[in-house]
Amino acid sequence: MPKIVDAELKRIELAEVTWRLIAEEGFEATTMRRIAERANCTTGLVTHYFASKDELLLAAVERGIDAAEKRRLYLRNVAPGLPVLREFIVTMLPLDEPMRLHWQVWISLWEQAAIKPMLAKEWLRMTEFSKTQLRAHVDDAFRRKHLQQYIDIDLQTRTLYSLIYGLALDVHHKDRAWDKMATNVIDSYLRTISTPMHWNALDLETSTAS
Amino acid sequence: MPKIVDAELKRIELAEVTWRLIAEEGFEATTMRRIAERANCTTGLVTHYFASKDELLLAAVERGIDAAEKRRLYLRNVAPGLPVLREFIVTMLPLDEPMRLHWQVWISLWEQAAIKPMLAKEWLRMTEFSKTQLRAHVDDAFRRKHLQQYIDIDLQTRTLYSLIYGLALDVHHKDRAWDKMATNVIDSYLRTISTPMHWNALDLETSTAS
Repeated sequence: MPKIVDAELKRIELAEVTWRLIAEEGFEATTMRRIAERANCTTGLVTHYFASKDELLLAAVERGIDAAEKRRLYLRNVAPGLPVLREFIVTMLPLDEPMRLHWQVWISLWEQAAIKPMLAKEWLRMTEFSKTQLRAHVDDAFRRKHLQQYIDIDLQTRTLYSLIYGLALDVHHKDRAWDKMATNVIDSYLRTISTPMHWNALDLETSTAS
Repeated sequence: MPKIVDAELKRIELAEVTWRLIAEEGFEATTMRRIAERANCTTGLVTHYFASKDELLLAAVERGIDAAEKRRLYLRNVAPGLPVLREFIVTMLPLDEPMRLHWQVWISLWEQAAIKPMLAKEWLRMTEFSKTQLRAHVDDAFRRKHLQQYIDIDLQTRTLYSLIYGLALDVHHKDRAWDKMATNVIDSYLRTISTPMHWNALDLETSTAS
């Protein structure tokens, strides 16, 4: 294997180890030494790839985002407009273990961003990215007339985004009742901005039971 | 001053110092030593009052909640029902520096709760408390018929709560445009569940300009 690929793989491995450690033990406990231990290498090797814990945190978050994107590939086969908008939102919620861990790491970045300008810039860049994705789905559903035509797309994107974030923060309730409630909050809101015809066409009775 | 009062004051002082340190420098950097430095005392004195950083974190969060409650006393003079519901929600948003710092500390507790069962219990207890407060306001507005009578009070409380939390996580944008947007998100949502008469009676054009 060429050296350059090897180096890239090592970076990815370290980012994944960091991701898991932050999610399981918290950002504070995730020291360079713990990361090296878990990755079966020396602390020197870790610092060779990442100069600081902040850089590792960013790499871990990026890995989490990449993984979430991969798990979202099936959305390509979901009907466009309202159906894919709803499904996209559901994939952002912490309804399974990988997404719960993802939110864990994501909020660690949030916390660090409050005290470190470099991380604040990255946080803003990353949230803008996911907000833009959500907005594209809202916009598409709107242009297909699956959403009420009097809505303000920016305001609705902001509202949906805040709902998702707020629900995600509620992740410490880890039970099925919570999952159902979170989906209900999203659905009852989406319903108010959808046209009745397209909302009913979602046929949620069937899909949420699956 | 009797010793017992003295001890209580010292606890409060340490909690406040911790609160400010977490908000300004993050939970990780807030060591017992930093707290002692800021409070002009020995690390031994800090550990005399608080056995661990986790206990200090809880005390800091409690102080933040108490302070927020005090700043909310004026709500007693706001008209009951929809007006006080809206105002209560606005007081939860990070629209000024104390509330921004409060959210900072609050989310630190969230992060620690993910990895420490004792803190998870406290987090759930505290969120239940503020959810109950919000629900009481929603319920009152509903019983006064300021809200649409077909709404599900629990679902609406959950939705509003999630919106507030989601907006609060957006705190790293610190500009007036954000403040206006956050208030807009809340208002446009509250409007959909209010009766038009009571919504219009809020006369928001005047109050938001003030």
